[in-house]
Amino acid sequence: MSTGVNQLSNALRCLPGVGTKTAQRMAFHLLANRSNGHLLASAIDYAMQHIHPCQQCRMYCENTLCQWCSSEERDNSQLCVVEMPTDIHAIEETGHYQGLYFVLMGHLSPLDGKGPLELGMDLLQERIESGLLREIILAVNTTVEGDATMYYIAKLVKDYPIKLTRIASGVPLDGELGLVSNRTLAHALSSREPLTF
Amino acid sequence: MSTGVNQLSNALRCLPGVGTKTAQRMAFHLLANRSNGHLLASAIDYAMQHIHPCQQCRMYCENTLCQWCSSEERDNSQLCVVEMPTDIHAIEETGHYQGLYFVLMGHLSPLDGKGPLELGMDLLQERIESGLLREIILAVNTTVEGDATMYYIAKLVKDYPIKLTRIASGVPLDGELGLVSNRTLAHALSSREPLTF
Repeated sequence: MSTGVNQLSNALRCLPGVGTKTAQRMAFHLLANRSNGHLLASAIDYAMQHIHPCQQCRMYCENTLCQWCSSEERDNSQLCVVEMPTDIHAIEETGHYQGLYFVLMGHLSPLDGKGPLELGMDLLQERIESGLLREIILAVNTTVEGDATMYYIAKLVKDYPIKLTRIASGVPLDGELGLVSNRTLAHALSSREPLTF
Repeated sequence: MSTGVNQLSNALRCLPGVGTKTAQRMAFHLLANRSNGHLLASAIDYAMQHIHPCQQCRMYCENTLCQWCSSEERDNSQLCVVEMPTDIHAIEETGHYQGLYFVLMGHLSPLDGKGPLELGMDLLQERIESGLLREIILAVNTTVEGDATMYYIAKLVKDYPIKLTRIASGVPLDGELGLVSNRTLAHALSSREPLTF
């Protein structure tokens, strides 16, 4: 394969979920649709230069503060802590949350070099100490690492008059029981709620 | 979502097989791994500027002729016609072919604006008329469009002393019969070969 094509398809492999064959297909696709290729290269260039973490919540944005932290319509007494930027979009799409966010960019995982500092826990502590927060909602993943992260944040919050909650776990509303994992079902059973009519 | 992030994830959607959610994930991944982002942008830029179709076989390369057309070790009396550049890599990996290639960059599909000119049939005709070829091997896909393309090439070759072959169709060597399509199995049955010991 030509060196340039090789370089392009190797570079494309840095994208998540893209292996050798997909990268090759993408490379040839870009070569066959050059206007898309030019657009993509300049969009990446622009993003690398102009998009940075929000100084308050670590979400990516083009200004000092992101659209949520700088909005006057959001409830700044509620803070929802998520692992990834995409989680914010998922929560926004529900239309059921009007507070602010904090993005950890991962979860506690010392073996991968992700300690409290990498997750911006110092920034989170500033928010906790600011006295503005009445509730912190943990929307981290329901994994072992997510649990560890949750306990770390719980310790930070302990001495402050802040309500700490976690989004509910259980059976998805549109799922069949047979498709749900044992762990989820066991949790759903032990956390069963009384029915009232 | 920030405009710049939106632009980046929209641009990423030009890649084959990348939808809205995957593009978002890719965008945030690049923002979190900026050195990869810079590398990718410059690899695309370089490719768009320096990689062009080989003037003889239409495979992408950085010179006038590709590595196969310019090699003195390849058998220039054999020409293998494929639909996509990735097909060449698949054939090269078998190690069972030493001739040259011709890339159609698709198949005859008038409704999508793909006629003989778009597939480089004029260039292929030049190769046929050159008198150098002894065999043309069709390695186009076994689809209706692939068949139409095959018949078009068969007509071009008809009046020349060139052997025209097609790669064998049938049951894959490492597949289970139950997983093979009806059409393949019917073809494999009607094209059955005598066993000799």
